[in-house]
Amino acid sequence: MTQETVAFLGPRASYTHQAALDSFDEQKYSLWPAVNIEDVFAAVQHDEASYGVVPVENSSNGAVIFTLDLFADLKDRYPDILICGEVYVRIQHCLLGRAPPKSPIANDVLTSPNDSGAATPTLDTPDPAKPQSKPLVSISHVKKLYSHPQAWGQCKNFLNAYLKGIERQDCSSTSRAAEEAAKDETGCSAAISSATAAKMHGLDFLAQGINDFDDNTTRFFVLRRRGSSEMETLADSFSPREHAVGASDEDMDNYKSLVSFTVEGNNPGALADSLGVFKPYKLNLTSVNTRPSGVEKWNYIFFVEFRGRRLEGTRGAVNGALRDLGKVAKSWRWLGSWQSKSSS
Amino acid sequence: MTQETVAFLGPRASYTHQAALDSFDEQKYSLWPAVNIEDVFAAVQHDEASYGVVPVENSSNGAVIFTLDLFADLKDRYPDILICGEVYVRIQHCLLGRAPPKSPIANDVLTSPNDSGAATPTLDTPDPAKPQSKPLVSISHVKKLYSHPQAWGQCKNFLNAYLKGIERQDCSSTSRAAEEAAKDETGCSAAISSATAAKMHGLDFLAQGINDFDDNTTRFFVLRRRGSSEMETLADSFSPREHAVGASDEDMDNYKSLVSFTVEGNNPGALADSLGVFKPYKLNLTSVNTRPSGVEKWNYIFFVEFRGRRLEGTRGAVNGALRDLGKVAKSWRWLGSWQSKSSS
Repeated sequence: MTQETVAFLGPRASYTHQAALDSFDEQKYSLWPAVNIEDVFAAVQHDEASYGVVPVENSSNGAVIFTLDLFADLKDRYPDILICGEVYVRIQHCLLGRAPPKSPIANDVLTSPNDSGAATPTLDTPDPAKPQSKPLVSISHVKKLYSHPQAWGQCKNFLNAYLKGIERQDCSSTSRAAEEAAKDETGCSAAISSATAAKMHGLDFLAQGINDFDDNTTRFFVLRRRGSSEMETLADSFSPREHAVGASDEDMDNYKSLVSFTVEGNNPGALADSLGVFKPYKLNLTSVNTRPSGVEKWNYIFFVEFRGRRLEGTRGAVNGALRDLGKVAKSWRWLGSWQSKSSS
Repeated sequence: MTQETVAFLGPRASYTHQAALDSFDEQKYSLWPAVNIEDVFAAVQHDEASYGVVPVENSSNGAVIFTLDLFADLKDRYPDILICGEVYVRIQHCLLGRAPPKSPIANDVLTSPNDSGAATPTLDTPDPAKPQSKPLVSISHVKKLYSHPQAWGQCKNFLNAYLKGIERQDCSSTSRAAEEAAKDETGCSAAISSATAAKMHGLDFLAQGINDFDDNTTRFFVLRRRGSSEMETLADSFSPREHAVGASDEDMDNYKSLVSFTVEGNNPGALADSLGVFKPYKLNLTSVNTRPSGVEKWNYIFFVEFRGRRLEGTRGAVNGALRDLGKVAKSWRWLGSWQSKSSS
């Protein structure tokens, strides 16, 4: 029997890879690293993969706008993409590189006042925060840093305290950053990356858990293609690692749904009316996001997430709210209902 | 008489500089380029500048999250910042560099099939869009490109068609990019930057209007400090270039207001209730934005913009809506009311 494919935002050892491994058993599914988020959408839309895994928001940085823009789907390229699951992965950045040979000097450096973890106050940062962790070894040999642009912002305190002024090179992923650091044979390069990447690229841990916020978590969506009929998808709930739930149960507490909509720019009140259709059905909004609609300037597409699940046919609260939404919004799209997971 | 200072997101010749020049007469105000958006907020908060100018959203790329996060003001550093005006600046990117000496070969290159403006279809981009404009001169000598990361995305079609595979270097602003390109004495560097930057750094126009979307516009907010009493600020409407409007007039059509609020994470319905307080007062929502609240994971701060103006004291629709918001939201903050400008 051929294995089903799961496309994820690569490269291997990325946090999205971790999310995919958390949801899909590698013995049963073939995991495929896509170059970018759009390739994951395309693979699922064109049936080249049964499932896709993409990042959707980070607890510190907010929404992943590339993913929202693909859900907005302005060119109608991904009309059959549905969200069928979510995964939370705790982001724990490490400083990976080559540990220096052990020596008394190295220990000296570690306990010297310069490495105390107290960053120098500047006009820009008058009150620098203390980093969550210290280097495990001396890192005075590190001359160049590689990472994904988002990671610099997530490790500000550690970088300010221990690696101020060191040259930085942006990479397309933290995993790629580890690969670049590993290539430097002088051992003077380091990467902000994941523990998985250390293993994969044979790098040493120079520091662990260097994020400013200890509870930095990224949320991922699991995507699948709408079945031959929408109903099939609704009944055939995503459950590689969990028991499917009966499609007749709305299960407000255990399910979430995402809907996008646009409103006429010259229709005053349409936005408030569209946001208001959920309350009469007791569907509790959990978040709202906005992106430019791409149709005209200062016109937006809104993403509303709420607790509850769309049932087959026309029954239930979600179908009721969507009917009402159709009366006030210019356009709308149901993007899926899925079982809630808790944030790690 | 000492001139009042206007702080703007620098460097000089940036689009924010253009926005500041559109609002403030250089003869009457001293314009000061700040290094980052936070420095603009700090200068206005600490009375080092009377006004500040910061970008808030782009018609193609959406909200400027750094600015939203400063309005969210999680550390309570900018409690007195109020929006008192808006400016729209049309973003017209140019390719700036050194024009090659004129020769028949240069003309040949321009009309060769490779420079037709038709990008090669790839699996990733099966249907590449044609760029809006062509190079003004041969650009085959360009070996390195400098720009702000956002500009690559805004000029995708031109870059795909004429500069595919050319090395790119990210800069902190398009103005800085022009500065870097000007430094290269070989003449093989070019920058995606503004027409103003060409003049400032003595560069030639290799191409003009290379944005994918012709109507790419950025919106800026003008900031000021809340007066000794809030009332004073309300009455003393921002009007360096315009006539002040009477504070007794709500002027729903000509004014906009911005309010931020947070809701209790465990209060179902609070988000819908908070978004719903504006409608009974006939305050039409024009946009909604969200950022992580920073207080706990998956809790958000919402920004709601609507037509209308807060009046002095407790009178009027906006004060009514804010009273109601106080009953359902965990916290809220009025961020200002200002006269609407039209998008250029």
